Amino acid sequence: MEEMKRAAVIGLGSMGWGAAISLLKAGFTVRGCDLRGDVLQKFAEAGGEACTTPAAAVGDVDVVLVYVINSSQVEDVVFGANGALETAKRSTVFLLCATMAPSATTAIAERLEAAGMLVIDAPVSGGHVRALAGEITVMASGSQEAFDRAAPTLDAISSKVFRLGDRPGAGSQVKMINQLLAGVHIAATAEAMTLAAKAGIDLKTVYDVIRVSAGSSWMFENRGEHIVSGDYSPRSAVNIFVKDLGIVTSEAEKAGALTPLAASALALFTEASKAGLGGEDDAAVAKILASKSGATLPGMEE
Amino acid sequence: MEEMKRAAVIGLGSMGWGAAISLLKAGFTVRGCDLRGDVLQKFAEAGGEACTTPAAAVGDVDVVLVYVINSSQVEDVVFGANGALETAKRSTVFLLCATMAPSATTAIAERLEAAGMLVIDAPVSGGHVRALAGEITVMASGSQEAFDRAAPTLDAISSKVFRLGDRPGAGSQVKMINQLLAGVHIAATAEAMTLAAKAGIDLKTVYDVIRVSAGSSWMFENRGEHIVSGDYSPRSAVNIFVKDLGIVTSEAEKAGALTPLAASALALFTEASKAGLGGEDDAAVAKILASKSGATLPGMEE
Repeated sequence: MEEMKRAAVIGLGSMGWGAAISLLKAGFTVRGCDLRGDVLQKFAEAGGEACTTPAAAVGDVDVVLVYVINSSQVEDVVFGANGALETAKRSTVFLLCATMAPSATTAIAERLEAAGMLVIDAPVSGGHVRALAGEITVMASGSQEAFDRAAPTLDAISSKVFRLGDRPGAGSQVKMINQLLAGVHIAATAEAMTLAAKAGIDLKTVYDVIRVSAGSSWMFENRGEHIVSGDYSPRSAVNIFVKDLGIVTSEAEKAGALTPLAASALALFTEASKAGLGGEDDAAVAKILASKSGATLPGMEE
Repeated sequence: MEEMKRAAVIGLGSMGWGAAISLLKAGFTVRGCDLRGDVLQKFAEAGGEACTTPAAAVGDVDVVLVYVINSSQVEDVVFGANGALETAKRSTVFLLCATMAPSATTAIAERLEAAGMLVIDAPVSGGHVRALAGEITVMASGSQEAFDRAAPTLDAISSKVFRLGDRPGAGSQVKMINQLLAGVHIAATAEAMTLAAKAGIDLKTVYDVIRVSAGSSWMFENRGEHIVSGDYSPRSAVNIFVKDLGIVTSEAEKAGALTPLAASALALFTEASKAGLGGEDDAAVAKILASKSGATLPGMEE
């Protein structure tokens, strides 16, 4: 299986970078592709091979990890000019790691499979720190052959792979439900901290009590700390949730499901993005709520 | 401190019953008061002293745990005819365990203190099972003297007491923030499960994946299981969140804080209550969303 130790990572953002580094640590030869020259240089210094186009990165690798942001970017880097399909050999395994609408994932997977490729729908969860440690969670679906061939890659980047079926699309569906909850929980954390601030309650006390009480969530524990310390340097960005909750509400509308809380949360993230906070940590949605409520949270201008 | 081993519990509902049993196990003499004759009989069989009025229960005890539902009931059982104040001796410690608006807690505490009583604002969290085991969490505030005198009682009913200040009101404030999050998280769980059902995703799979992912919450893990199994026997009821989110939104309005997610969640709980689900488990809010979305969840009529 020597040949399976060659991988290409398209998109060296927060999560893609972590995956690429984890693959290097696991002994893979890794080609990385990104639009940003400084990132490519850093990647070369870290022991990777820097490529400026997907076509140049894919060539003779056996696994391609697609870590760009959304379905339109996936289409570009796979099917566009200088895209991965120009050079990929037959039966290359494509891991589609972006969070996409399940319908978009299915359409992209069908085009790839029609071109002779193997596909795993593989959206990830866990954040930058766990990505760097090779410990992300993957919500994965695809054929047995694709999983067999991608096993060393999945072992290198992930501590937990959920097998959600043999067709691409199922992974994206479960990830969509996860993002509904994650986005609502971040907005709820913002709302709770804003009310606490307006009511004159010490935010650190609220955080310490609730993180171990029935009101807690993974996001409250994680993002609540960002709000209490006023630290909005981006771990994940406001704009990610504008995209992901947009997927949730549009897929829900297609399916006929009511999602009033996701819609409320999306409105807040959208407002935060329009206010220029799109590149800040997603917890910055709290600044919008606080500002509209006349409250000042840590890290906000008086 | 022999005298401190005598307690009265007013209101033997889910949480009050658990506290009363925990006190009996810890060697207290416990008088219990409830409107329901069958509950009183069961309490007598469990080793307690059954009383039909607060005045009869309180007499010579040193600690009174008030476990009724809301501030109006607290006022009745404390200040009303045959209420606790008719027989309470000076410096009896009142533990106010109901979830009340902080302003209501403060007003009741002031009246009690003016009558020579000690008060701990002591809303609880943790559910019936932990209450029975003497392991609830208490979000408590009150004077050092009140805490000193109530220490054996708090030890018997709780595994964790947060000391949130020396004035009643602070405990209720933090509990209010907890309930904002808890109520929104239950509604978000309902929304996620409804979307999953409409999109044709297996609910058990969604539950198993998300409970260990970034979309998880204490409530998703706990109430999600009720939805997956279609079990709406009440652990905590829909009507509790109609009350508690009503406190959140009205206190938020007074403070000038925007709470769009809490308002969305309250609308769903209110609709569930109006549809006759008020006495069911709070997870039954999912039935309203599913029904409006044309989905059928486990335990719903086809």
